[in-house]
Amino acid sequence: MMKRLGAELVGTFWLVLGGCGSAVLAAKFGGDGNPLGIGLLGVSLAFGLTVLTGAYALGHISGGHFNPAVSLGLWAGGRFPARDLLPYIVAQVVGAILAAFILMQIASGTGTFTVDPNAPGAFASNGYGALSPGGYNVAAGFLCEVTMTAMFLTVILGATSPRAPAGFAPIAIGLALTLIHLISIPVTNTSVNPARSTGVALFAGPGALSQLWLFWLAPILGGLLGGYLHRMLERD
Amino acid sequence: MMKRLGAELVGTFWLVLGGCGSAVLAAKFGGDGNPLGIGLLGVSLAFGLTVLTGAYALGHISGGHFNPAVSLGLWAGGRFPARDLLPYIVAQVVGAILAAFILMQIASGTGTFTVDPNAPGAFASNGYGALSPGGYNVAAGFLCEVTMTAMFLTVILGATSPRAPAGFAPIAIGLALTLIHLISIPVTNTSVNPARSTGVALFAGPGALSQLWLFWLAPILGGLLGGYLHRMLERD
Amino acid sequence: MMKRLGAELVGTFWLVLGGCGSAVLAAKFGGDGNPLGIGLLGVSLAFGLTVLTGAYALGHISGGHFNPAVSLGLWAGGRFPARDLLPYIVAQVVGAILAAFILMQIASGTGTFTVDPNAPGAFASNGYGALSPGGYNVAAGFLCEVTMTAMFLTVILGATSPRAPAGFAPIAIGLALTLIHLISIPVTNTSVNPARSTGVALFAGPGALSQLWLFWLAPILGGLLGGYLHRMLERD
Amino acid sequence: MMKRLGAELVGTFWLVLGGCGSAVLAAKFGGDGNPLGIGLLGVSLAFGLTVLTGAYALGHISGGHFNPAVSLGLWAGGRFPARDLLPYIVAQVVGAILAAFILMQIASGTGTFTVDPNAPGAFASNGYGALSPGGYNVAAGFLCEVTMTAMFLTVILGATSPRAPAGFAPIAIGLALTLIHLISIPVTNTSVNPARSTGVALFAGPGALSQLWLFWLAPILGGLLGGYLHRMLERD
Repeated sequence: MMKRLGAELVGTFWLVLGGCGSAVLAAKFGGDGNPLGIGLLGVSLAFGLTVLTGAYALGHISGGHFNPAVSLGLWAGGRFPARDLLPYIVAQVVGAILAAFILMQIASGTGTFTVDPNAPGAFASNGYGALSPGGYNVAAGFLCEVTMTAMFLTVILGATSPRAPAGFAPIAIGLALTLIHLISIPVTNTSVNPARSTGVALFAGPGALSQLWLFWLAPILGGLLGGYLHRMLERD
Repeated sequence: MMKRLGAELVGTFWLVLGGCGSAVLAAKFGGDGNPLGIGLLGVSLAFGLTVLTGAYALGHISGGHFNPAVSLGLWAGGRFPARDLLPYIVAQVVGAILAAFILMQIASGTGTFTVDPNAPGAFASNGYGALSPGGYNVAAGFLCEVTMTAMFLTVILGATSPRAPAGFAPIAIGLALTLIHLISIPVTNTSVNPARSTGVALFAGPGALSQLWLFWLAPILGGLLGGYLHRMLERD
Repeated sequence: MMKRLGAELVGTFWLVLGGCGSAVLAAKFGGDGNPLGIGLLGVSLAFGLTVLTGAYALGHISGGHFNPAVSLGLWAGGRFPARDLLPYIVAQVVGAILAAFILMQIASGTGTFTVDPNAPGAFASNGYGALSPGGYNVAAGFLCEVTMTAMFLTVILGATSPRAPAGFAPIAIGLALTLIHLISIPVTNTSVNPARSTGVALFAGPGALSQLWLFWLAPILGGLLGGYLHRMLERD
Repeated sequence: MMKRLGAELVGTFWLVLGGCGSAVLAAKFGGDGNPLGIGLLGVSLAFGLTVLTGAYALGHISGGHFNPAVSLGLWAGGRFPARDLLPYIVAQVVGAILAAFILMQIASGTGTFTVDPNAPGAFASNGYGALSPGGYNVAAGFLCEVTMTAMFLTVILGATSPRAPAGFAPIAIGLALTLIHLISIPVTNTSVNPARSTGVALFAGPGALSQLWLFWLAPILGGLLGGYLHRMLERD
């Protein structure tokens, strides 16, 4: 069990360091309006590749969840035991916080780096209303996070079904996370992962922390919905 | 059969929500000329990834068509029974409309979102002439949609041939849809899928609706052509 | 044999329609400096995806060369019989010309489309000196095309070796072509494929035609070199 | 053994020619601010694709390290014999220098190409402080290179574990390198590979050479750390 928790910690560390790291360090490289930066497309790709690479590297140890909403959705889909939920989620949150801490150390290396707690997406945090990158209200943010997480779990449960081709699931799941970011970064800066939201919120200031409830509630609701939907579609 | 139709509905929902959603929400993020937005490249990737992820997740349930032109092309290629065509197509169109509805709810969350029915590509709709993103006339649009759908079916039928490597078809097919968008978004905003065109046209206004005939006729013609071409190339 | 030639014709048609089509129609969408266009990155991806998708769809029929330099390199590597070289190359060139013709029909649909024969990369043609996109001289162009084609064949022969993992070769080969374009579009607009160069040169004007010799000579030399290099590395 | 060293030389040649070549030739194509250029996203993709394609082409000959930190990390992980370390590393450095030489020949073909030894990232070199693309200090650069290389080895060792799905490792490993570049080009121009840093530093001037120590020390430390981490996570 310690190795499984270690793998979840390392995988979630990688997800936050890679996804949020690319957003903080490289998205706007060269300044606003400079096409050298990787933009939302590059950040979307980075988030997906953390999961693709992490799942090939660590999936055979822990299953490669790296996300409390995924663990809960797998439980709802009948693929993960309830007794492992709490330790998995703790390991995921610890990995996410550790990644945010390391990212802050690297980012601070310019000597001029600051986090504006009132800016949408500060330190790659998630938000709605005044903290939504595109100014989307709480209802749109909630609907978006629920829908995206439900579809994420539909892909995860379907691609890891014994009837799906073996070995390809990390590609499908990682690129599903890329796709979800391609759609929804403007709405909430895209969470679908309470651990990821928590890790950076601790460094992003009071605004992000006060909105953190949505990025636990909506992804978990979506995860459970996805697990239920999968059972409807695959039940014999 | 209900599960198969459910899978087609969910998969087409994902195709329209992801592909059209990325176009509506993220393509021009930050305003015209801002390289943060995902642009045509990001939208092309998103469309392809909906099919790649949907086919790994749902392909073993329904075959993963998510597109009336694909169902008809598979029938023309001798791979799909005529009696399943109508229910599949109905499920696909319902999923597409549902996705357009959800997308409208999310997009409206800024409070300032509007759809200009006279703008090319409004709400990610398809069009020709005055409604073509690059101002291409009806003949170019028709030729483009027929050719692209024919090649799409050639890839689908070839990559799922028993003689092709097993398990890789969703990668080939999803990335073929990405490729098709990389080429043809400027021409018609790229359909190759009557359900996708119908879903968003219902919310895009009278212009898109009046041009919808082309995005049923041309993709279906192309799909049948691709099915026929495949039989020529693979017939024993 | 007719089916194999048909597959080579269709595959090379797809390569030129997709790769050159994305360059002509979508690279600069919205005008110079508009980040909505897919740029060199999108064009690079499109070229690679034509081969990735074409190889999964048609590889089991013809081997999926779609390129005279590849057929010659496979012959040099001991994997393709000399007697099939000429018919394969003819089918490839015919497919490329057909694609350029269809692309011209679509591109002309704006009513204002023109090809400037003195512009580097006109109608996605290849060139050096005054016709190099980045102003590279003939020596740099020649060295670049030889090196890139030699490495392309190294990847093709290695990834299709019986000792390499089965089924993955189209991914490796297609993405190798993407990589080659990411490096070398500025130098020669990237050929590594005499058929691709010939197809569009016929529509690009006298300048492209007068430089066509290099895009037969250098890729073929590189292909032979790659075949020889592979034999050195894999010989038992 | 000569064939294995030849494969390492060719693979590292490809890594530097493709990754650094795309950075030097295509990243800023059209001039600063022109979105036609492939930017950091394109360069990140190019680095990853050199490894993905090289590993499919040459992995069955030499293991496909192409990087001294990888060879050392594989040794630390118990997967590579100590006696092969020195010849592998020599072959990798020779391949990297050869690639930098060829790249210089091609780049010089414009007639106006110069390398400014005081510019961050000159000739795709790695640097910190005044030579960091984003102005990151030596501590941030060191931490970043150690962390990224440790995670790179975690992916490499995990994805090539006998318990991971067979055949997919080159995808996971190549895209891990893409991901690492998406995060860290602004910090150090991304090395994680002492051979790659050495090859271009020889052509980039005294500044890059004087900072080369960090791009041997930090990646090797990270590689050993990743090897140790993997043993902790997978030990029976």
